[in-house]
Amino acid sequence: MQTEITIRTQGAGLYEFTDQVRTWLQPVSEGLLTLFVRHTSCSLLIQENADPEVQTDLRAYFDRLVPPSDHPSMSYLRHTYEGPDDMPAHIKAAMMPVSLTIPVTQGEPALGTWQGIYLFEHRSAAHSRKVAAHFA
Amino acid sequence: MQTEITIRTQGAGLYEFTDQVRTWLQPVSEGLLTLFVRHTSCSLLIQENADPEVQTDLRAYFDRLVPPSDHPSMSYLRHTYEGPDDMPAHIKAAMMPVSLTIPVTQGEPALGTWQGIYLFEHRSAAHSRKVAAHFA
Amino acid sequence: MQTEITIRTQGAGLYEFTDQVRTWLQPVSEGLLTLFVRHTSCSLLIQENADPEVQTDLRAYFDRLVPPSDHPSMSYLRHTYEGPDDMPAHIKAAMMPVSLTIPVTQGEPALGTWQGIYLFEHRSAAHSRKVAAHFA
Repeated sequence: MQTEITIRTQGAGLYEFTDQVRTWLQPVSEGLLTLFVRHTSCSLLIQENADPEVQTDLRAYFDRLVPPSDHPSMSYLRHTYEGPDDMPAHIKAAMMPVSLTIPVTQGEPALGTWQGIYLFEHRSAAHSRKVAAHFA
Repeated sequence: MQTEITIRTQGAGLYEFTDQVRTWLQPVSEGLLTLFVRHTSCSLLIQENADPEVQTDLRAYFDRLVPPSDHPSMSYLRHTYEGPDDMPAHIKAAMMPVSLTIPVTQGEPALGTWQGIYLFEHRSAAHSRKVAAHFA
Repeated sequence: MQTEITIRTQGAGLYEFTDQVRTWLQPVSEGLLTLFVRHTSCSLLIQENADPEVQTDLRAYFDRLVPPSDHPSMSYLRHTYEGPDDMPAHIKAAMMPVSLTIPVTQGEPALGTWQGIYLFEHRSAAHSRKVAAHFA
């Protein structure tokens, strides 16, 4: 069973799509869910969905760890013609998951109490992101 | 075939559970093993199990890369009320795997000679960590 | 369906092997592809295969984030007897994927337009790297 989930983003940050995944899984029982993001400038992430400040802090941390390519500390970067947020987006996409696999029991992914499924957008402009979903 | 593996941790560091995985796989033959950790403040890791100093050094590196939230360099963090080790734990959990998939042949995971399966605990207090395991 | 893909590396950097994966998949139709690298000093990576400067920049960034163990800032590391590039390689291997899972439709992995599959070698010397591949 396969589908493609579309997530519209409006700037860098975390976008939860746990509900879209749950809705798609509804009829199924036991198996393995795989999510794969078809881009190289955003990531998939399992993170806490209780306190929204966790998401703000995650973004703040990674923005400092990987500054824009026009920041003095990043002057060695060469791939800069797609904008100062582009190469940092590729770097973040290398550090965080492109694919996630989650066991499913009785139609319910094995997420912990506070775990949500997120797309982490690393680009500033609006994007339409595609996530390939597979269940078997 | 699914189960849940419990790993009791006593402070930050790497806890190997390769043997627990091997024991559970024993009767099976060819397939795919998936491990998924049901928490947002610890990680799963495949790492060297030969020299224990590798594990000490991994922890030392990530503790410097992501200092406690009461460290001056982290003063921008907002999610601090669960203790200075909490938000750094979420950040580390974003940088290291929440899920692992390993091909299995004749009941044996395709680990390299020096590879072990670890839970990387990022919190200081003792915790009981749950790993959902799936084999098909 | 399982196989082992060998990738010969000659120093640190990204080595694309998307074609080797596609060739192996040829006869199959719908399913899930898993890749697992059997080493703790290199990584698997999905990244942009359009502009080769992205690959140069990725390597440059991670070499600065995780300097060689003989660099003054890394003097706390203990696992140094395998050379100054060894412990940084383990650290990078913890930060980037050891396994990738990709849905496959009609024999074609669900890669985005610009996505390629890479082995990211973190060691300086030449190596023969083994990637376990599983399709089901």
